[in-house]
Amino acid sequence: MNETKNGSIEAVWWDGDAVGYIDQRALPHALIRARAATVDDVVQAIVTLAVRGAPCIGVFGAYGVALSLVSGDAFAGAAARIRAARPTAVNLAWAVDRVLAAPADGYLEAARAIHAEQRAVDRAISEHGAPLMPTSGAVLTHCNTGGLATAGDGTALGVIIAAHRLGHRLHVYVDETRPLLQGARLTTYELAAAGVPATLIADGAAAATMREKKIAAVIVGADRIATNGDTANKIGTYQVAIAAAHHGIPFYVAAPRSTIDFKLASGDAIEIEQRHPDEVRTFGGTPTAPIDVAVYNPAFDVTPGHLIAGIVTEYGVVRPPYSESIPDLALRPNLYEVLRLHR
Amino acid sequence: MNETKNGSIEAVWWDGDAVGYIDQRALPHALIRARAATVDDVVQAIVTLAVRGAPCIGVFGAYGVALSLVSGDAFAGAAARIRAARPTAVNLAWAVDRVLAAPADGYLEAARAIHAEQRAVDRAISEHGAPLMPTSGAVLTHCNTGGLATAGDGTALGVIIAAHRLGHRLHVYVDETRPLLQGARLTTYELAAAGVPATLIADGAAAATMREKKIAAVIVGADRIATNGDTANKIGTYQVAIAAAHHGIPFYVAAPRSTIDFKLASGDAIEIEQRHPDEVRTFGGTPTAPIDVAVYNPAFDVTPGHLIAGIVTEYGVVRPPYSESIPDLALRPNLYEVLRLHR
Repeated sequence: MNETKNGSIEAVWWDGDAVGYIDQRALPHALIRARAATVDDVVQAIVTLAVRGAPCIGVFGAYGVALSLVSGDAFAGAAARIRAARPTAVNLAWAVDRVLAAPADGYLEAARAIHAEQRAVDRAISEHGAPLMPTSGAVLTHCNTGGLATAGDGTALGVIIAAHRLGHRLHVYVDETRPLLQGARLTTYELAAAGVPATLIADGAAAATMREKKIAAVIVGADRIATNGDTANKIGTYQVAIAAAHHGIPFYVAAPRSTIDFKLASGDAIEIEQRHPDEVRTFGGTPTAPIDVAVYNPAFDVTPGHLIAGIVTEYGVVRPPYSESIPDLALRPNLYEVLRLHR
Repeated sequence: MNETKNGSIEAVWWDGDAVGYIDQRALPHALIRARAATVDDVVQAIVTLAVRGAPCIGVFGAYGVALSLVSGDAFAGAAARIRAARPTAVNLAWAVDRVLAAPADGYLEAARAIHAEQRAVDRAISEHGAPLMPTSGAVLTHCNTGGLATAGDGTALGVIIAAHRLGHRLHVYVDETRPLLQGARLTTYELAAAGVPATLIADGAAAATMREKKIAAVIVGADRIATNGDTANKIGTYQVAIAAAHHGIPFYVAAPRSTIDFKLASGDAIEIEQRHPDEVRTFGGTPTAPIDVAVYNPAFDVTPGHLIAGIVTEYGVVRPPYSESIPDLALRPNLYEVLRLHR
């Protein structure tokens, strides 16, 4: 099985005696469904970015621990190697540890539960967010926030696709999202797979597109959210938020509660990862600039909460003032536990 | 000779019995100085974009008409072929016709005069604009507006380089300027040649750079300016202007008076050229998106005059309210004629 109920593409799945996954490096040119039959395969798929997106890596790693029993890999080392495959992905370590907390004959069940919960959280985000989308009109998104990134329905892209399936007549403008082109490569692909009309634009064209194409709403994902609503997300998000404000267009963020750092009072303290200059001074491996030119290549930027009209979580849409509404979210029961009780 | 007095790179020059030019297709990886020895060579250099930038093409075409006498090309057809090499470049037809208005033994002199006047206009823009640059700090620019585009000192980039030579301690952040990457390929190259410290950024990083690097001013070129200050320029300019306004950063335009369309009351009537989708969905022939994805690829956008702090022309800096200051500019004597009287 590699399609979710709503027809979007599923990024990873249990495949009997292996972990199935889509090799995202080949997208959008080829849809390659691969099988990780050993723990080495699992680690390699993560390290080489064949599987990407923090929630997706978590689900994949959870299945990887279950696989170690089937494949006969030495167990203790196997889990540690999976956990270490992407040190900055907190979901991966969390998922591996949660599977390990189960009895060995419950590993696969634990991995399936993590996957099911991820799907349920994404589905809840989609359902809460869909009513924010216009019933008819153009919307704009940045980067990739679909099922390929979460192993579920996705966050911002999940909202868009859910609205489309509810009958909203949406046309999606997709920023190509330099330097790594997640919008061009992955978001356009996922929208086509879901049958949602979409148009690709250069990142610099976003403001002109808002004006010329009468964009009605913008929705993006998030990597980390502070309790005042300040949101770290893919570089370029802040610029899109400013342009949306200039045009009076509501700008929404869609993210699970786990993205919120309840200890963080503002985005000022968020450390921004600086990535390699070659991402900007080359394009598909071909140099596009003097090879020794200096490059400023932050992976993320921080959009201030005051530019955000609402944050869509699995608990509903959180509205300003965020310094009141976001801490309140910490008090809600764990949706994972609620789901488990109802199983 | 292929360097201007201030050390910047000269794009075209008369080379005794040929027209010399820099093959801009090879930049920034190789500085190829080529010779157009026949009218066919001249036409080919224009058609293949080896020589680009409307003012630069005008100067090159003017030398091309002079060349037709030396190279023994059939004359009447030669001028017509040069004029038709790039139909949308108004400077080219204007320059060819102006050379043809001279007696045959005056063609080279006429071409040299066009080139000298282009240099003088650029120099005047640079001198008027340099005082707008901070004495010390970071500035940001978009696309390419240097000598490669004008066969002189350039417009916005000329201002930056002139300020640097006057002792301003500038650091220039350069938008790569998708889809055609003029910033990455050409602007970084010209700044390095002029010894101005520069850093390349992805277009989406401009707003974050304004905040993180404390950008003190933004300066860009223009393709067409209306009498209310509305300015058509390379796609992405509007977005940069909005982000500059959001951060309280002055946003300047540098362009010769010839860029102003005195019959145009606002930018609303400016028709925007739509370019081929493959510019966005491929790079160097390699697809970066699904090959059939729809693309919105406007070549230009229009920045409203109210976002522009000043427009630097060869007559000085024009300030708001533009609907008064710009029409006043039409009444000034022609700088070309002034220069000719003083020769």
